[in-house]
Amino acid sequence: MFKRKFYIPDNKIPKKWYNIASDLPEALPAVLHPLTRVPITPEDLSPLFPMEIIKQEVSTERFIDIPEPVLDVYSLSRPSPLIRAYNLEKALDTPAKIYYKYEGVNPAGSHKVNTAVAQAFYNKSEGIKRLTTETGAGQWGSALSFAGALFNLEIDVYMVRVSYNQKPYRRALIESYGGTVTASPSSRTEAGRKILAENPNNSGSLGIAISEAVEMAVQRDDTKYSLGSVLNHVLLHQTIIGNEALIQFDLADDYPDIVIACAGGGSNFGGFAFPFIGEMLRGGKSVKSIAVEPFACPTLTKGVYEYDYGDTAHLTPLMKMYTLGNGFIPSSIHAGGLRYHGMSPIISLLKKLNLIDAVSQKQVDCFEAGIKFARTEGILPAPESTHAIKTAIDEALKCKEEGISRTIAFNLSGHGHFDMSAYSDYLNGNMSNND
Amino acid sequence: MFKRKFYIPDNKIPKKWYNIASDLPEALPAVLHPLTRVPITPEDLSPLFPMEIIKQEVSTERFIDIPEPVLDVYSLSRPSPLIRAYNLEKALDTPAKIYYKYEGVNPAGSHKVNTAVAQAFYNKSEGIKRLTTETGAGQWGSALSFAGALFNLEIDVYMVRVSYNQKPYRRALIESYGGTVTASPSSRTEAGRKILAENPNNSGSLGIAISEAVEMAVQRDDTKYSLGSVLNHVLLHQTIIGNEALIQFDLADDYPDIVIACAGGGSNFGGFAFPFIGEMLRGGKSVKSIAVEPFACPTLTKGVYEYDYGDTAHLTPLMKMYTLGNGFIPSSIHAGGLRYHGMSPIISLLKKLNLIDAVSQKQVDCFEAGIKFARTEGILPAPESTHAIKTAIDEALKCKEEGISRTIAFNLSGHGHFDMSAYSDYLNGNMSNND
Repeated sequence: MFKRKFYIPDNKIPKKWYNIASDLPEALPAVLHPLTRVPITPEDLSPLFPMEIIKQEVSTERFIDIPEPVLDVYSLSRPSPLIRAYNLEKALDTPAKIYYKYEGVNPAGSHKVNTAVAQAFYNKSEGIKRLTTETGAGQWGSALSFAGALFNLEIDVYMVRVSYNQKPYRRALIESYGGTVTASPSSRTEAGRKILAENPNNSGSLGIAISEAVEMAVQRDDTKYSLGSVLNHVLLHQTIIGNEALIQFDLADDYPDIVIACAGGGSNFGGFAFPFIGEMLRGGKSVKSIAVEPFACPTLTKGVYEYDYGDTAHLTPLMKMYTLGNGFIPSSIHAGGLRYHGMSPIISLLKKLNLIDAVSQKQVDCFEAGIKFARTEGILPAPESTHAIKTAIDEALKCKEEGISRTIAFNLSGHGHFDMSAYSDYLNGNMSNND
Repeated sequence: MFKRKFYIPDNKIPKKWYNIASDLPEALPAVLHPLTRVPITPEDLSPLFPMEIIKQEVSTERFIDIPEPVLDVYSLSRPSPLIRAYNLEKALDTPAKIYYKYEGVNPAGSHKVNTAVAQAFYNKSEGIKRLTTETGAGQWGSALSFAGALFNLEIDVYMVRVSYNQKPYRRALIESYGGTVTASPSSRTEAGRKILAENPNNSGSLGIAISEAVEMAVQRDDTKYSLGSVLNHVLLHQTIIGNEALIQFDLADDYPDIVIACAGGGSNFGGFAFPFIGEMLRGGKSVKSIAVEPFACPTLTKGVYEYDYGDTAHLTPLMKMYTLGNGFIPSSIHAGGLRYHGMSPIISLLKKLNLIDAVSQKQVDCFEAGIKFARTEGILPAPESTHAIKTAIDEALKCKEEGISRTIAFNLSGHGHFDMSAYSDYLNGNMSNND
């Protein structure tokens, strides 16, 4: 019998996150204050984040201990499996070996839980009672509400209006965990009211929802803000994925030539790829890393590398990153988690330094790949994750053309159970490849 | 740190199913031919099932080898975790220890996959190209379509009309795996046409859907029928759950005093409880087993033990079982998988012999328990599974009243990701406890 799944025994489970800032060939550009444009201090960030998270944001320590209560919640569904996609390989008739790391096994259904649990823990430890946040497709809102339930924090979610309308069951999941959900732009905030005054039918964006969540966070001392991607500490928490994968490839007696993950704000890609890129930066094996974006929101492939705000109302600090402009509103593709104008500053720097690759994929092609994956490997992927699958298939077919066997690994970041209307649209031919 | 999850190492993974027919204190009553009412022969069943499954249906061998290709697919998501519900215990302030076996980790989202994969394999091995089946809430249809995709079989699903309308995303999942879905009663079959002639608005039942699927199966040589519960071979395949749990309790250095699972046709309960009951029947530790039904469909608690048909059109053999009558149409509760008029003949016999207990639970109480579970343990359960949770909570609170610590284990048979409209109804107060 083939060995399909590589599971980590208890005594080898990673207990540290990996901080790629320790291994970058050049320092990250400073983050600038939104008003003064001078480099921000930890104090500037303290209305938004607890001190332990601010420390992680600027840390250059290579490995950071995962607190016991976080490991404890991780243990409900981690280590996540690394699975060899034998059926997909066979269907493609490729000499490539394809592996995927499946993050959809946790109760909230995506990798987002990895940082949600950590952020909830650090906020709770510093006496915070309530967190505000934004969510696109709803994966992040679900993850933070899950973490809020386990750490007894109120969670206040601003959900991009187009997703709020498209995905009512995501809202129901967030509410089942006890979170509250507001469609963004909303009339609850100054930022929202201003945007609605200009256009009452504004369908929203992650940039707008961030503005609203930040505005609400700074109003109360017992409340802080939580971001699901982009920032250094978020990507740090996600490296549990790649850290586990390194051990699992050891158990599989293999090592990836290519690692692939989709990229919206970058935590999915960073979490999976950074530990492998770190090995390379420290003189270990070389790896080709591919960040996959939607054609409709091509930040790394068509954006510019410059200082920009993280949100639309210019409440967040300025970060040097690839950006499409903070006012950019992408078309309403189903991969709502990838509809962000900017990109993690670390990933942006890696791209600038040509240490990683980026490609974009069209929506219908991604869903076609997702259905092929479901019918061969049995798992129905989240629309975001189909971008990684499509690219993995492209690379496997290249191997076939060239007659070369490469080891390809991708991050299957979540399941598509809350995206069935998207799959219905695809199956019924109601989706176009213009996106 | 508490040890929450008990995972089975590769070398201890069970490779056999447990057949409780080998240990029953008295033989199962004969199954009777629907027309002649004489005991059926294997040949009578051959238009419906492949020979290997018919053999399993009548086997009295204690352990039956799981074929390698079935173990291979199981390995994608099995062993499923056994988890100690520390958070729930704490929330209830109970001296009881509560464990749950979580079957929702597989890609189709419920325990139903365990027999779907086995049935798909045996049919494929005997040259079958197409399977027909019924589904209530859609868990079984999803599971069989998943298995059909992996073993390259066409899957033709008759879905109870009320669920077809309530749960469009279940249909989309079945279709994503390549299955076809027809609302039942339908005009595709004689049985369906007859029922629609009497009442064009008939909302359907599992009994009717079975009639339609059976009628379609016998019409073509390359087609057989697949049932998701009730029959001996189905419960046999589900015993992988309890077999794993036995090993996991050994790893946890504990043993359940009480095992709990919901019961519609009985495969959920049988799969989890039979291995424990078997230990008891062979002189091992005593265990109290509780089958939990919905108040709206109280087969074991209010039905009669007599011969009845498995379906509404009287196409299936007669089995001696607890039944509410094959024409019974329960109210449209959200736990569609528990809306069946009959009960597994083995479970019926165990109940008749007082070797197991049964209780019924009301819908709102179950959803309340489900939300409590989601907010403590983090997993949003399927409506069916909430019946087991509610009963586990009842037993844990009894322990608290009595000041006694008992070990309680229940089968968390699936997640509720495709039941969010039900949770919305509950959270918005649109659900009554009359069901």
